[in-house]
Amino acid sequence: MKPTVYEIEEGNKLLPRFDLHEYLPCITLDADTGEVLMLGYMNKEALERTIETGLATYYSRSRKKIWVKGEESGFFQHVKDIFIDDDQDTLLLKVKVDGGASCHVGYRSCFYRKLKAGSKEELEFTEKNKVFDPKIVYKHSS
Amino acid sequence: MKPTVYEIEEGNKLLPRFDLHEYLPCITLDADTGEVLMLGYMNKEALERTIETGLATYYSRSRKKIWVKGEESGFFQHVKDIFIDDDQDTLLLKVKVDGGASCHVGYRSCFYRKLKAGSKEELEFTEKNKVFDPKIVYKHSS
Repeated sequence: MKPTVYEIEEGNKLLPRFDLHEYLPCITLDADTGEVLMLGYMNKEALERTIETGLATYYSRSRKKIWVKGEESGFFQHVKDIFIDDDQDTLLLKVKVDGGASCHVGYRSCFYRKLKAGSKEELEFTEKNKVFDPKIVYKHSS
Repeated sequence: MKPTVYEIEEGNKLLPRFDLHEYLPCITLDADTGEVLMLGYMNKEALERTIETGLATYYSRSRKKIWVKGEESGFFQHVKDIFIDDDQDTLLLKVKVDGGASCHVGYRSCFYRKLKAGSKEELEFTEKNKVFDPKIVYKHSS
């Protein structure tokens, strides 16, 4: 039976509502600093594995496969808390990150640029230095 | 000409990459506390209006229309910063919220529940009290 709006919004049962493509977007925060690190996507299997293993596990839409964050770089995300939003179509993870970086470009967070004040298209960098060199960390990747 | 990966990831020009449905997910944070308030979606027009007006403007996928956050509740979101992620397919907004609430259920944040430790499906509430009564705030809505 389809859950009611009340059960979804005010209930205490996890009733994830995956989108048309069977994905659920997932905002991932650093558990210590509260900084937003990235937005990933999970399918049902990725969410189950995340809950079971305590390691953030996403579904890569480009590679079309389950992906344990850190399996290539070693920068695993250890899940401290899993939140869900009002209509249960978005997750929020609080994680401790091995190595302190979550962006494949080398920065701590994927959100390292912001729109310059007064500009409609010029970005400025808010993180000045990369935490790692992606050429070294991903040297074994194809 | 299609921008290169380098231009997208390392460049200083906003080159938003909307998804198949012409949406861009947008994580919205409270500019003062850093708390994640919600995940919304923008299409090209919503992003342009957000930049031009300084008021967070989303595209409602359910109502299929541009939606200035707060137009019904009065809880407008005043944009302080607009970040974009590495591959420019996700936005992050830092906002000041009139009234201090961003969730239509009445809570400050949409992420007011988390999975109970050790459980696979039981949620616990992390916000105890609603900031407003949606029945009163949305009384003029259909």
